[in-house]
Amino acid sequence: MSRLVEVTELAPRDGHQSLLATRMATEDLVGACEDIDQAGYWSVECWGGATYDSCIRFLNEDPWERLRTFRKLMPNSRLQMLLRGQNLLGYRHYEDTVVDRFVDKSAENGMDVFRVFDALNDVRNIQRALAAVRRTGKHAEGTICYTTSPLHTVEKFVEMAQRLKELGSDSICIKDMAALLRPQPAYEIVKGIKEKCGKDTLVHVHVHSTTGVTMVSLMKAIEAGADIVDTSISSLSLGPGHNPTEALVEMLQDTGYTTRLNKDRLLKIKDHFAKVRPRYAAFESKIIGVETEIFDSQIPGGMISNMESQLKQQGAGARMKEVLAEVPRVRLAAGYPPLVTPSSQIVGTQAVFNVLMGPYKALTGEFADLMLGYYGETIAPRDPAVIEAAAKHVKKEPITCRPADLLKPEWDELRAQALALTGCNGTDEDVLTYAMFPQVAPKFFGTRADGPKNVGKAIADAAGAAAKPADGQAKPADGKGPITSPVTYAIKIGDVSHRVIVQPA
Amino acid sequence: MSRLVEVTELAPRDGHQSLLATRMATEDLVGACEDIDQAGYWSVECWGGATYDSCIRFLNEDPWERLRTFRKLMPNSRLQMLLRGQNLLGYRHYEDTVVDRFVDKSAENGMDVFRVFDALNDVRNIQRALAAVRRTGKHAEGTICYTTSPLHTVEKFVEMAQRLKELGSDSICIKDMAALLRPQPAYEIVKGIKEKCGKDTLVHVHVHSTTGVTMVSLMKAIEAGADIVDTSISSLSLGPGHNPTEALVEMLQDTGYTTRLNKDRLLKIKDHFAKVRPRYAAFESKIIGVETEIFDSQIPGGMISNMESQLKQQGAGARMKEVLAEVPRVRLAAGYPPLVTPSSQIVGTQAVFNVLMGPYKALTGEFADLMLGYYGETIAPRDPAVIEAAAKHVKKEPITCRPADLLKPEWDELRAQALALTGCNGTDEDVLTYAMFPQVAPKFFGTRADGPKNVGKAIADAAGAAAKPADGQAKPADGKGPITSPVTYAIKIGDVSHRVIVQPA
Repeated sequence: MSRLVEVTELAPRDGHQSLLATRMATEDLVGACEDIDQAGYWSVECWGGATYDSCIRFLNEDPWERLRTFRKLMPNSRLQMLLRGQNLLGYRHYEDTVVDRFVDKSAENGMDVFRVFDALNDVRNIQRALAAVRRTGKHAEGTICYTTSPLHTVEKFVEMAQRLKELGSDSICIKDMAALLRPQPAYEIVKGIKEKCGKDTLVHVHVHSTTGVTMVSLMKAIEAGADIVDTSISSLSLGPGHNPTEALVEMLQDTGYTTRLNKDRLLKIKDHFAKVRPRYAAFESKIIGVETEIFDSQIPGGMISNMESQLKQQGAGARMKEVLAEVPRVRLAAGYPPLVTPSSQIVGTQAVFNVLMGPYKALTGEFADLMLGYYGETIAPRDPAVIEAAAKHVKKEPITCRPADLLKPEWDELRAQALALTGCNGTDEDVLTYAMFPQVAPKFFGTRADGPKNVGKAIADAAGAAAKPADGQAKPADGKGPITSPVTYAIKIGDVSHRVIVQPA
Repeated sequence: MSRLVEVTELAPRDGHQSLLATRMATEDLVGACEDIDQAGYWSVECWGGATYDSCIRFLNEDPWERLRTFRKLMPNSRLQMLLRGQNLLGYRHYEDTVVDRFVDKSAENGMDVFRVFDALNDVRNIQRALAAVRRTGKHAEGTICYTTSPLHTVEKFVEMAQRLKELGSDSICIKDMAALLRPQPAYEIVKGIKEKCGKDTLVHVHVHSTTGVTMVSLMKAIEAGADIVDTSISSLSLGPGHNPTEALVEMLQDTGYTTRLNKDRLLKIKDHFAKVRPRYAAFESKIIGVETEIFDSQIPGGMISNMESQLKQQGAGARMKEVLAEVPRVRLAAGYPPLVTPSSQIVGTQAVFNVLMGPYKALTGEFADLMLGYYGETIAPRDPAVIEAAAKHVKKEPITCRPADLLKPEWDELRAQALALTGCNGTDEDVLTYAMFPQVAPKFFGTRADGPKNVGKAIADAAGAAAKPADGQAKPADGKGPITSPVTYAIKIGDVSHRVIVQPA
């Protein structure tokens, strides 16, 4: 008798988020829903901060409508979302009743599984959201962000799992957003959780594939007792994305473990995403293949491209190596935060500042807040000198309380502000959209009636080389200036030769 | 104390063979040699049938000169080659003294490790080459081609290992050319070999990465006691290639196993191949990412592209699905041969014939020979009706003896023929080149004096945007290199402007 290993399909959320800059339109997701619904997954990850943001910023889609669409098209599936704890899907802390409201509305619109994390692993930032989920009767998954530092020991991670369990987590997720989880710690952490939290504690493992080792980590996690693992269908897998779902199924054959996934359905899902992926070629991640340097730099791929573009904007593109060397120092000064949204951006930007202007000569407001405790507690003490600089910079005192404890009730004001916007439909859902994305919501409310706008190429063009421009991004994705002055090519289309003049767009 | 796991670097042979159609010139390999030599590998695979063929067919390079160059540039390394047993590097059986001569000359020119396999796993076809290697004092590695069928059990593979051991193999290789070796059989076969052949028997595991599961198979093989594993540096890895060397190193951290590879050297090797790979963009394998369908079809990627091009030549490109379904039937009729050069081509071509003309209405001469035993014994009996058709077709009787036993001494005749060719230098090496590639050698001897011809783009252009033609592939007019990630151009055709996104096909 093999032990059943359950699987979460990531393609509708983290798959295209990691590989296609979260640009996939609902239109291109619905075609896979029936097969996903019937394939035998434990859950389908399909919603989160980046997808919500992308919906209103780029796709003119109401993210709540997307959720309801998934609910309707996948009636047999657990829908799963990624929730940034007290930050919800936004970038600041929200007052507790806003957290409650968001969870209630998400559950009401069809969400089943809430994977709740905090970028600093401060469980106080996770606690309220977990409780809110529990109250709805839905599945509350307390989450550990995996990272490496001298202080991030197996014992510490297991302790965090125990605290998450005590707070009512229905399952514990180990979230390895940077593909740093090697096989041995994967084994030891899962085993530790099973031993300390009880063997019936559901353990869910999320890994990316960037470093090329994490398929083995999934195997080891399963051997240690992991109940659920995350994968993405092969046609939306690998690189900075995830391990391929079909490979997981095959990997387990004749071992003591098995999935209940239907291979014919998986093939159809694969074919679907293989068909629509070329529409989003302009958004493809630059990272392909395997990058093991991350183990030493600790810097996830998405963060590197952010820093590169910041450096280029300052005309300092050549100083990337210095920035890469600076990141671990900033991370040490900041008490070894895991590098995940938003801490990855905060640390990365400060590293760029340090290189360009000297160490902590200039601070971003966010970095100052991080140093002063306004994002929560870190695993290690933060550098006192930098805390002092931060306090001066933003004229605030360091805090040690839960950051949201300082917030006053804000729902009524958020509601009033949202309702004043043209196109706001007056629902709590719209108020939440405004609350989480106050810069983007006004424009979205105003254009929502125009309906979804797919930023991918037309399907007919996707097979060929020609393309419609994707959201104004005329620039080459890799920043390599292909040509700067007109060049004449001979291009053969079918049997016809064309002389073609190419110049910068 | 961790157990040491040794590593063979594949980039100089199977790496670019699998990913770049074996086109990499010696010129682009030499720059990595010092780092490879110092990195701490057990061996460096750098020679074999396809590289030899490519040297004389495409690159105007003397393959023996390439070998001597490697010998000189990697004085501290074991150089390793892949040898097709009695077929040497060619496509037919050679008489025993030719086998001896080839092995002698290879050893004399610097080869250290001979990985000897037979496409049918008929050890009679491996025996002579193994003995020849033993006589030179070099390392003789007896090889099992891994495949799947109802008859290919762990026990059968272990039995084969025992026979290879008895024949004097210094190590046993499990060669998984199609990425079919899942973790569990990897574990069981290695364990079985260690139990039956003795725990001191060196076990060497070669896997491809096409199906996405074989990194886990390497881990399991190592847990079962594998001594040496094959990987390719990350910038020449994955897809139909191999698992990345750096990822293997990282994977083992904190496990009970370790390599002795130097990470700084690996980074330099990676950078080197990342730099030269774009020169060969025109030869990139079409297979990217993961293909698990191979588990059901049993058809390696290279074979699929062969069959596709054969179908297209017949104007029957649309019938690929029928051919894929036919391959397992042909394989059954032929006694379940592993699918590896040359059996993969023989079985694939026959499957195309069967679909186009009806089952066994037309036979290739090679397939008839396979059915009649002229390639050796298969694990299962072959279909008597097809044997009968084959006998009629080629007017030969089925045989059960070792095929080479039917051959008469041929060296003197081969030598006479070679020496009659313009440009033949009269060495045994040249005679061997002629013996193995009688169609290609005459032209090569004639042009050899012109020196190596790199079919890649010029280095200076490889970083740029457009491409110099590689051996008949369509060329952009300005001779610049191809792009490696999507770039948006404004293109004017006649008077009409188009926005065009260009990306690797």
